[in-house]
Amino acid sequence: MASAWDFSGNPSSVHAEGRQARHLVEEARGVLAQAMGALPRNIVFTSGGTEANALALSPGLYSGSGLPVERLLVSAIEHTSVLAGGRFAPDRIESVQVTPSGLVDLSGLSAMLASGPPALVSLMAANNETGAVQPVAEAAAIVHATGGLLHVDAIQAFGKIPLNLSALGADLVTLSAHKIGGPKGVGAVVIAEGVTGLDPLLRGGGQERGRRAGTEDVAGIAGFGAAIAAAVTAMAADVRRIEGLRNRLEAGLREQADVTIFSADTKRLPNTILFTAPGLKAETAVISFDLEGIAVSSGSACSSGKVQPSHVLLAMGVGPGEAQGAVRLSLGWSTTDRDVDRALEAWRKLKRHLVKG
Amino acid sequence: MASAWDFSGNPSSVHAEGRQARHLVEEARGVLAQAMGALPRNIVFTSGGTEANALALSPGLYSGSGLPVERLLVSAIEHTSVLAGGRFAPDRIESVQVTPSGLVDLSGLSAMLASGPPALVSLMAANNETGAVQPVAEAAAIVHATGGLLHVDAIQAFGKIPLNLSALGADLVTLSAHKIGGPKGVGAVVIAEGVTGLDPLLRGGGQERGRRAGTEDVAGIAGFGAAIAAAVTAMAADVRRIEGLRNRLEAGLREQADVTIFSADTKRLPNTILFTAPGLKAETAVISFDLEGIAVSSGSACSSGKVQPSHVLLAMGVGPGEAQGAVRLSLGWSTTDRDVDRALEAWRKLKRHLVKG
Repeated sequence: MASAWDFSGNPSSVHAEGRQARHLVEEARGVLAQAMGALPRNIVFTSGGTEANALALSPGLYSGSGLPVERLLVSAIEHTSVLAGGRFAPDRIESVQVTPSGLVDLSGLSAMLASGPPALVSLMAANNETGAVQPVAEAAAIVHATGGLLHVDAIQAFGKIPLNLSALGADLVTLSAHKIGGPKGVGAVVIAEGVTGLDPLLRGGGQERGRRAGTEDVAGIAGFGAAIAAAVTAMAADVRRIEGLRNRLEAGLREQADVTIFSADTKRLPNTILFTAPGLKAETAVISFDLEGIAVSSGSACSSGKVQPSHVLLAMGVGPGEAQGAVRLSLGWSTTDRDVDRALEAWRKLKRHLVKG
Repeated sequence: MASAWDFSGNPSSVHAEGRQARHLVEEARGVLAQAMGALPRNIVFTSGGTEANALALSPGLYSGSGLPVERLLVSAIEHTSVLAGGRFAPDRIESVQVTPSGLVDLSGLSAMLASGPPALVSLMAANNETGAVQPVAEAAAIVHATGGLLHVDAIQAFGKIPLNLSALGADLVTLSAHKIGGPKGVGAVVIAEGVTGLDPLLRGGGQERGRRAGTEDVAGIAGFGAAIAAAVTAMAADVRRIEGLRNRLEAGLREQADVTIFSADTKRLPNTILFTAPGLKAETAVISFDLEGIAVSSGSACSSGKVQPSHVLLAMGVGPGEAQGAVRLSLGWSTTDRDVDRALEAWRKLKRHLVKG
């Protein structure tokens, strides 16, 4: 029978093929749990970072004997999937401002928490555009002191800086597989022990302990587990190497023009450079780098090819004109010295065409 | 830079790698559109059938100059992900009864539609447990005559019987890749031209024309496209072959015991047998078939290994005791004559242990 239609390893089925699929999913869950210092039963696999964020931002969450959260405070530089606010009503969502360096304003956050009902606060571990590492543990202390809960979108930071549930002080952490070299279409919500009240986004089958219905993407989840294992092993050495390349690239960019690197005055992810220069047009830069085989991005990649001024830079107080000229270079495991040379060659050609201000 | 972290083919990015990923997604969209007689722009890829159903069951949908739907009528034999009701409030969801043969009761549906505001009706193309093919086109005519819309969950029927948007008369159709041999974790909502008002479930990036945020599962979607192309080519010949095997299996089951095959008096999918016999215990049957290498299921596979009486059989008026003894055998592309022999051998051993009533 071994049907390719119904029963080729549905992890909710009790027969042998189903048990094999279940084993793959649980093995990945164990790897992720260990990497994050969480219990396996507190991990919910999702179809990616966007779904993970939508699931995590759940009104009614509470910890232990605490009160359920009734409002959502999101930092102004969160990913658009977090800014969308999950299942909170629009009038229950407030924005937390950031400093010109691109860090969440902790005194502003304190003031907002001081009045009003218990809040869920959403703060990313590191920003996806500037790479700025956020003061998450400090924010956690402030949030918990007022009976609130902290969600940390660690999608961009995971695998690039050491992080786990207790170091972050987070109640919920969201992750994405493809950002660490795993498959696209897989993510997870990691929940601290004692946090309950998560409202499922997808209902139906009882998968993921009733918190996320739908036949599991077994291959994707197994790939996520493998990517985590690889990232954990390689992180320390790779990060040092990538940071070295990043620093050489930054120095080379600055040599050729009057370059501004955003969030340069604060701790950043080792692989990210968001920069601009007088007269630089993002669209031109993307095409020029692409011609040299260098994949760069103008602002966020999520707005389907449209170049709009980055909401992150606007929140940092950068003017719309300057924000339009921002270009992001990201380095990865596969980036080589030769890639940096090619990027700098592209930059040398490009800067001749900078519009004179 | 060609970063493995950020830019290895994000289809929303404008550089070369992004364009390649975009091409794979759009190619699969074209294949699905052609198979369903839909426009490519009216297809939304999701993380599977459960998410597709949750997205499709959207209050506020309307067609042309019609009024938005305000309530949901679901047949009592729908998949649990449909019974969950999408974004409709619990008090706006009503259940449509079925006949003892397992077909939706069309006169009951008519009566429910006659009073009350415009409704979205959800009716599966074929039931996942009995295989009973539902009178979808007739239901569509009744629904449209009252200004309602019809959602068809074609997850179980797709690739096994010919179907497309116009033959079904559907306004929305949901599909899943893994049910036709494609990857797990991919599905789609197919929308008829002129139907608007779909409320996104996942918000953030502008992917899928703003109807489903999140970086696309490029590999999964490409695999879905390939599976559809294969299913379309092979369906006619494969279905004849599988139906032949199914008929031989049914005859063999009946030879050995007083077998009841559910929905046997109506048109069924060519690959599904839901049956019972006096004294048969589903748990015992699953284990016995499994020992012969035959993967079977007791009722639905979605309730994480737990054997509960099937809501489908209960809705058909089968008693809880008899429903507890129901076993489903499904055949697929890879099923051979030898598999049928093994299944019948398992059945011969098993029937000796049937509990005498």
